[in-house]
Amino acid sequence: MTCETTMINRFNPEEGHLLHTRDQALLDRRRSVLGDIYPLFYKTPLHVVRGAGARLYDADGIEYLDAYNNVASVGHGNPRVTEAVSRQLALTNTHTRYLQDGIVEFAERFVDTHPAHLSRVIFTNSGSEANDLALQIARWRTGNRGVLVTTMAYHGTTALLAGVSPENGGDMALDPAVRLIEPPDTYQHGTAAATVFAESIERAADDLRRHGFGVAALLIDTIMSTDGIFPGEPGLLTAGFAAAKAAGALVIADEVQPGMARTGDHWWGFQRHTDDVDMVTCGKPLGGGMPIGSLTLSAELSDGYARGHRYFNTFGGNPASIAAATAVLDEIEERKLMLHAATIGGQLLRSITDLASPLVADVRGAGLFIGVQMHGDDTRSASAITAEVVNGMRERHVLISAVGAGADILKVRPPLVFDDADAELFLGVFADVLRGVETHGVLA
Amino acid sequence: MTCETTMINRFNPEEGHLLHTRDQALLDRRRSVLGDIYPLFYKTPLHVVRGAGARLYDADGIEYLDAYNNVASVGHGNPRVTEAVSRQLALTNTHTRYLQDGIVEFAERFVDTHPAHLSRVIFTNSGSEANDLALQIARWRTGNRGVLVTTMAYHGTTALLAGVSPENGGDMALDPAVRLIEPPDTYQHGTAAATVFAESIERAADDLRRHGFGVAALLIDTIMSTDGIFPGEPGLLTAGFAAAKAAGALVIADEVQPGMARTGDHWWGFQRHTDDVDMVTCGKPLGGGMPIGSLTLSAELSDGYARGHRYFNTFGGNPASIAAATAVLDEIEERKLMLHAATIGGQLLRSITDLASPLVADVRGAGLFIGVQMHGDDTRSASAITAEVVNGMRERHVLISAVGAGADILKVRPPLVFDDADAELFLGVFADVLRGVETHGVLA
Repeated sequence: MTCETTMINRFNPEEGHLLHTRDQALLDRRRSVLGDIYPLFYKTPLHVVRGAGARLYDADGIEYLDAYNNVASVGHGNPRVTEAVSRQLALTNTHTRYLQDGIVEFAERFVDTHPAHLSRVIFTNSGSEANDLALQIARWRTGNRGVLVTTMAYHGTTALLAGVSPENGGDMALDPAVRLIEPPDTYQHGTAAATVFAESIERAADDLRRHGFGVAALLIDTIMSTDGIFPGEPGLLTAGFAAAKAAGALVIADEVQPGMARTGDHWWGFQRHTDDVDMVTCGKPLGGGMPIGSLTLSAELSDGYARGHRYFNTFGGNPASIAAATAVLDEIEERKLMLHAATIGGQLLRSITDLASPLVADVRGAGLFIGVQMHGDDTRSASAITAEVVNGMRERHVLISAVGAGADILKVRPPLVFDDADAELFLGVFADVLRGVETHGVLA
Repeated sequence: MTCETTMINRFNPEEGHLLHTRDQALLDRRRSVLGDIYPLFYKTPLHVVRGAGARLYDADGIEYLDAYNNVASVGHGNPRVTEAVSRQLALTNTHTRYLQDGIVEFAERFVDTHPAHLSRVIFTNSGSEANDLALQIARWRTGNRGVLVTTMAYHGTTALLAGVSPENGGDMALDPAVRLIEPPDTYQHGTAAATVFAESIERAADDLRRHGFGVAALLIDTIMSTDGIFPGEPGLLTAGFAAAKAAGALVIADEVQPGMARTGDHWWGFQRHTDDVDMVTCGKPLGGGMPIGSLTLSAELSDGYARGHRYFNTFGGNPASIAAATAVLDEIEERKLMLHAATIGGQLLRSITDLASPLVADVRGAGLFIGVQMHGDDTRSASAITAEVVNGMRERHVLISAVGAGADILKVRPPLVFDDADAELFLGVFADVLRGVETHGVLA
């Protein structure tokens, strides 16, 4: 199996003839310099030129509603982020080998969004760099090599992370010391999901011990986005985390997906379940599009690691990315976007449920992160229907995507600034597209 | 041995009492949130607040001459970079899942700075991410695991790269499949340096084969900065690269140090010696401080890898970093900074040589990258004298650093916009500091 079959919602470059002539020309030029390693989204890719709030505009000025992008968490083209970065770049943008005020001020505010025992932060350029470092620290701390991840986990691009990211599929081999655990799939297992998850961790940890690897870490996206989006009830992950810790693992919460106020009740996804994690990583939503990642950990772990190791990351914590992240934090706080995510996300979830489409099997979410599990029908698989809905929405200028081992779950994860008008537009188009797909598979 | 002893020019946080009261307070706050993982430079760290051209300014408005930073290659606070990034951020800063013009236009110009067979580029957020991916591709392509690096090589921060970066020292274990090769040390080996280098590669490749790892890659900084800066005569690396390729390795030129016109004669350091490399990576000098890295490779290698793998990097190739990199390329081309680096770098090298200090053993360079090998004297080691010069320069407000296994080589690598006035100031202070250190070890 190659990656072409495992990446959901991937554009097939052999279907470039479906594009507008101008986009076809750009696509040809793109392929000749970038190749096909970075896949584009959708049956017909978008040619994006600008954005504002939750809206994007293509080269023809057509407006799209972005109900998918958590990088633009505080809105596309956010003026506060733009202004903060511009001001900083005009001053200087050098590195952490010099004392600088901005990084210290931001770090103080940033660690305060975490439980008190996580008082130190290391800045990187991406969630990948943060996860890679977190695993290095966990392996150093425990002296073990084994890593537990969920069955469809994706944690990043480095060699180490490719080895713990089964979602990649294809030729990308897993590390011999990785074991896959079952996510707490509340759709499949209902109220037993938490126990299924915890017992799966216990078995996998035992197996790692038997193979002589020991257990270094449970590395987990705390909303399990690529596995299918399982927010669950608060506490869903608590027993599993306790089992991992009892087996000697450090628990690393990968908050690239649910983090930074998205779930509407806490800054970080793990806090819905427990504060008892050892490290927290983030990337995407931190900097309004500017490259920045973070690893938050205890002083004890940070100091211990620093005694035998050093970590210098040229761009990590650069003043421009820090300025952007500060502006994002300001926006979330001043515009009360956490509360907003809870309110509007809750309404959206109820409205989607109320559509009562026969194609929809389950609707689940936390704040502005919603998964919609789809059914198949007599002639079409659930994944085929899911692809029809995603591409049907795209043709109607609303952007979402899909996840899950069966590629049968719609992923709705809009910018936090998604407002009432955005939600209304989304729901109208979604209802129409569902009806169309229910009755005649318009875009099959 | 811990890292404290291996990092050259590291500030000792226990000496914070040497700082200005305000800086001491900032340092305390910094340590309590960032810890000691990122070391600061110099016996007395700098508190930087702004910059312009090759000058930096601290919180008291004191001006420093930056003769060290290749990130700010086109100058600190470069207005063109600032303007380009600001304009892009106001539009949007989304990812490579959408068609976008800027990345294609930049990629076309960027690959054109490389030999014709390297026609594809993959953008990352850092040189580390680029090197990590290059090694993944080399291991996939060859089916081998072994990696050849120079004895004091440093290639980045990920787990994979920490394993091939002996310069880290301390607790940071090397990968069992890495072998260290001798750099072509022209100071120690004179005209035999190229042969020493090539023969060392042959022996190391044999050893990798005997251990069953095979040879995947020679990963090399083509000016060997951390080994001691060995530009050599054109062709210095040619026989070594040929030996590596004959042993089945892909040659990966890590151009984070010499790349982007710095050596004054070519865009990339390897081009001084041969065009016959398989992959080229870069990071630091690409984006005027904005996080961006690159991996340039052949269409054949890119397409082959893409068939079984995918690579999505959320921030990699983001429009703001691409806008910055485009502005940097514009600056280098329009201001003829490559020619400038050759001219002013050549003058600087001759002037340093002409100082004829008894403490200076060898002066070598290419363009604006100069290494000054120091002698010890009756009472002081070469590394002690080197540290005195580096910190003496810093006290006189000129910033350089030191490299090499013996920590006895001054590293002078200023922004490419370093001008005549900058060079004059540098030479005046350098001559004074050398004289001071020669006669009484003022800063011992």
